[in-house]
Amino acid sequence: MKSSASTSKSRGSNVGLCAILVDELTWLGVRRVVIAPGSRSTPLAVALAASTMEVSTCLDERAAAFFALGIARRTGEPVMVVTTSGTASLELVPAVAEASLGGIPLLVVTADRPARLRGVSAPQTLDQLQALTGFVRRTLALELLPSLSEGDLASIARQLVLELVGAPDGPGPVHLNIGIDEPLLGDGYVADDLAEEFFASRDDRARVRPVSFRPRLGALDPLVMAEIFDPGRHGWLLLGGAANTGGEEGEKVTAAVALSERLGWVLGADARTQVATSPNVVIHLDGLARGACALPEIAVVIGDFPLARSVMAVLRAIVAAGGEVVTLNDRFVVRDPGRFVTGSYVVDVRATLCMALEDLVRAQRVAASDSLVALDRRIDAIIERFVIEHGDTEIAFARRLHHVLTGHESLFVSASMPIRYLDQFRGYHDDPPLVAMNRGANGIDGVVASYLGFADAAPDELATLLIGDLATLYDIGALIHLPLPRKGLIVVLDNQGGLIFDQVPPATQIPIEVQTELFVAPPRIRPARVLEGLGLEVVRVKRADELDALVERARAGAFLVAAYEGTRTASAGALSSLYARIDLEREKERTQA
Amino acid sequence: MKSSASTSKSRGSNVGLCAILVDELTWLGVRRVVIAPGSRSTPLAVALAASTMEVSTCLDERAAAFFALGIARRTGEPVMVVTTSGTASLELVPAVAEASLGGIPLLVVTADRPARLRGVSAPQTLDQLQALTGFVRRTLALELLPSLSEGDLASIARQLVLELVGAPDGPGPVHLNIGIDEPLLGDGYVADDLAEEFFASRDDRARVRPVSFRPRLGALDPLVMAEIFDPGRHGWLLLGGAANTGGEEGEKVTAAVALSERLGWVLGADARTQVATSPNVVIHLDGLARGACALPEIAVVIGDFPLARSVMAVLRAIVAAGGEVVTLNDRFVVRDPGRFVTGSYVVDVRATLCMALEDLVRAQRVAASDSLVALDRRIDAIIERFVIEHGDTEIAFARRLHHVLTGHESLFVSASMPIRYLDQFRGYHDDPPLVAMNRGANGIDGVVASYLGFADAAPDELATLLIGDLATLYDIGALIHLPLPRKGLIVVLDNQGGLIFDQVPPATQIPIEVQTELFVAPPRIRPARVLEGLGLEVVRVKRADELDALVERARAGAFLVAAYEGTRTASAGALSSLYARIDLEREKERTQA
Repeated sequence: MKSSASTSKSRGSNVGLCAILVDELTWLGVRRVVIAPGSRSTPLAVALAASTMEVSTCLDERAAAFFALGIARRTGEPVMVVTTSGTASLELVPAVAEASLGGIPLLVVTADRPARLRGVSAPQTLDQLQALTGFVRRTLALELLPSLSEGDLASIARQLVLELVGAPDGPGPVHLNIGIDEPLLGDGYVADDLAEEFFASRDDRARVRPVSFRPRLGALDPLVMAEIFDPGRHGWLLLGGAANTGGEEGEKVTAAVALSERLGWVLGADARTQVATSPNVVIHLDGLARGACALPEIAVVIGDFPLARSVMAVLRAIVAAGGEVVTLNDRFVVRDPGRFVTGSYVVDVRATLCMALEDLVRAQRVAASDSLVALDRRIDAIIERFVIEHGDTEIAFARRLHHVLTGHESLFVSASMPIRYLDQFRGYHDDPPLVAMNRGANGIDGVVASYLGFADAAPDELATLLIGDLATLYDIGALIHLPLPRKGLIVVLDNQGGLIFDQVPPATQIPIEVQTELFVAPPRIRPARVLEGLGLEVVRVKRADELDALVERARAGAFLVAAYEGTRTASAGALSSLYARIDLEREKERTQA
Repeated sequence: MKSSASTSKSRGSNVGLCAILVDELTWLGVRRVVIAPGSRSTPLAVALAASTMEVSTCLDERAAAFFALGIARRTGEPVMVVTTSGTASLELVPAVAEASLGGIPLLVVTADRPARLRGVSAPQTLDQLQALTGFVRRTLALELLPSLSEGDLASIARQLVLELVGAPDGPGPVHLNIGIDEPLLGDGYVADDLAEEFFASRDDRARVRPVSFRPRLGALDPLVMAEIFDPGRHGWLLLGGAANTGGEEGEKVTAAVALSERLGWVLGADARTQVATSPNVVIHLDGLARGACALPEIAVVIGDFPLARSVMAVLRAIVAAGGEVVTLNDRFVVRDPGRFVTGSYVVDVRATLCMALEDLVRAQRVAASDSLVALDRRIDAIIERFVIEHGDTEIAFARRLHHVLTGHESLFVSASMPIRYLDQFRGYHDDPPLVAMNRGANGIDGVVASYLGFADAAPDELATLLIGDLATLYDIGALIHLPLPRKGLIVVLDNQGGLIFDQVPPATQIPIEVQTELFVAPPRIRPARVLEGLGLEVVRVKRADELDALVERARAGAFLVAAYEGTRTASAGALSSLYARIDLEREKERTQA
């Protein structure tokens, strides 16, 4: 016979209260938690362990938070991360900032000393609220007191989940700080109470079903829509950060592709957009933008701005020439870093694109007349020739990895050079893999942990990571503390660091020794060696086509590292050489025109 | 011929302005900087590289900040840490919180996007101020504009250094956030300008000498002093966190020892206090406090409260019995986590102790009549017998390491078990080494990086670290990214994790499997193996006396790791067994009394 929660020995104890909170959160759709071990958080950890939530643990709180972020990035569902008190809570800040900018539903729960011990120099007691306040939708400070009722905790859980996933502009992080007094587990606590009595009893309870909280944004005003999506105008559609985790995000991409065909517009997509080969699609935005091209009358940017800096200059030129640049996005932000946007609309993007498509349903499919499409195809052919000749370049590795992956398989990409390689040289793909990255704040911190989370969220699918040597070494602890993928491949492009700094303006002005000292900070040990030291299987690869066999092995159920050990000079040289070929092609285009 | 700064091509450029700021800071006593590489911070990095400041670099910002903290902890002088924009700045939060609680002069300088790009979804742009605000004395937001004059920058530098080291209650962290616009280096920038012209020219400049800013706290009121330090009363002096980096802190300890002898009081010192063997000194505070003992009429706590929790109970008992517990410290905090203190005085502690000593100068030296001293000696003998019999225990390793080090050599100790070992079992020492730890917030994050900084600040002295397996693996990146000591020894006590959780109350209430899963999070690889993978020389040790030879080698100029691989069960067993012997001794004492 099941006893009710109110007869349990845990009633009113810290564990009992935590168990109610955990149960309510689970009920509302929080199904995964990453716990960073600690003492003060014991009641929470014990309640979680007895609950039906899927629990992961990770010693390093920074890695734990990025891991949770990776899970949430893939599933789109809320993920909880739990820490103990003190600096443990502060280790979460970078990942929470990324979650904030990236719109990721991270539920941050930090155990704290009880309020009566704060501000009196008690050990391990510091302000755990302020550091996170600027990056969360809500900061909620709760004291775990026996007077809390089930109703109190249920409504707290509802409020948290509402703000976590229910804002009209999508998900975002929230912070619950819980003051917990001693005795941490309560005097009468018996471990078995929870699993066998408490959670079982609560399953019997009649509860209001969790509702889908999310209010919808409206679609774009029809008059404005008709003005913007006018087949009589020469226009571009640009997909900047259209996420590609399937569902609604995938529908946006499908609608945008169809719309571009109805309008006869070019559709430009950066690396983050999982867009398949299609007549009007162009993907070499940087290569196209760096040359002279006929400017359209209007460019519509959907989601973030595309990654390439050069695109910003072209957009600015459109406005300077009297044209329009319009942004459509469904987060509450004005995207206009370059200060040239002529219209910013925060709308239900998917609905807007679908409605625009419907209005154009009678228009016939039109191939984009734009010569950009042809040039885009030629750039791709140049890149393809280049990687055939130079299979031993980072460019070839990035392109090959993207090429051999498909559909539900994933490619997590580090900020810095890997994302640039993918953005500029990935090539067309009929069934492109999921491409993801921490592109909210663009940090190189936490990339490995985020990848591991991304992989962990879909353990049956091959998950790969393309990453440089510095980002790998930055986050090496993640590979010690976190669960490794069942089907995984990490491709490390090791050019001994800091190639990105060759690609940004200041580089040419600073002597190479100073650059090396200040920007590259060359680690004394190469990543392959460190990864071997961690007991991972590391395969040193020289040519991109060696990846095929490794991908096959990973697909069949292995976790491998492919290490490409090059040099910064060679990699920079390869880039210059390929850029020169592309420039030449553009010059030819211009001369012929 | 030296040109003046005003004729330099760098004038008014980002680099030129940074160079002035750096030069002013140097002039005011900031002599070391740790740079975490990045793009936005380029002008700062370039100016620093050309300056006379000693520059270290570290890829991982978290490690960079803890490294800087370690340097400042040892030298007592301000250390600057520089990051680029974005999550990089947020990685500093844990170390800055430790600096805040520990009173460490950390000058945090974060490069930022210019103000005009904030809040408009520009990439890598987020609120870099708020996360740190709660942990710094001052947040200063500067925009690097050509209109800034040398005078502006000089006064900003003075304000920063004033708050960094000049508060009456000692040093603390400050934060300077610098908005930097493009072109980052300025168009006319030539690398050689700076080193050869700019800094040289500024050395010629007549400048106001930096003054010692620090206003002094007053000493304790003489009437109160006479009442407290009354040789007619039975009293204890307790040194909790009396730092031991020499200079003024060392004088406090010397004065306290002398005072205890004049008063005939027992002087209790915890592991953080570098106190040599002396007639009235007792060091086994936990061992003494856990038994019944004759309570004094007054206990005077100098600095922090001692580490041992059991001491708090005894102090509470003193007050309950009508006695007094008085705290003297020179930081603006009321130290009273247990809510029993009868008097809190924020005063110049050194001056107060010296004045009290002077008042008692005619009183003759008195040995503390207290039987505690005798018991303390017997506890030490028990521990000594124990480690002779059990040279293969963590206790023996901790005691041995402390024993073989002397004077200016240092022993950095991780939070969690290592500090407890040292506090309870270190033994008397005629010339004890410097003992240091991150005891502000007690985190296990950043311990290795802090040790490396502590070592780097005094490269000619042997620097050792006593650390557990979890804290080692937590901060493994520090050993990849930071400079290693010339004379260093890391002793890893590897009991496969989380022994501390056996020592706190909840442990007995949670089944061992749950404990292991939730608290220990056993890493899949032992630290010794990882450290070997990093190319370090790792010696596996079985008995504590093997440390002697390793210390000798490190002293002669080597960096080594001694790895003791035990088990959690064995280590917990050793502790229980030793505690039982000590309890028995106390029981004997009680029966005889």
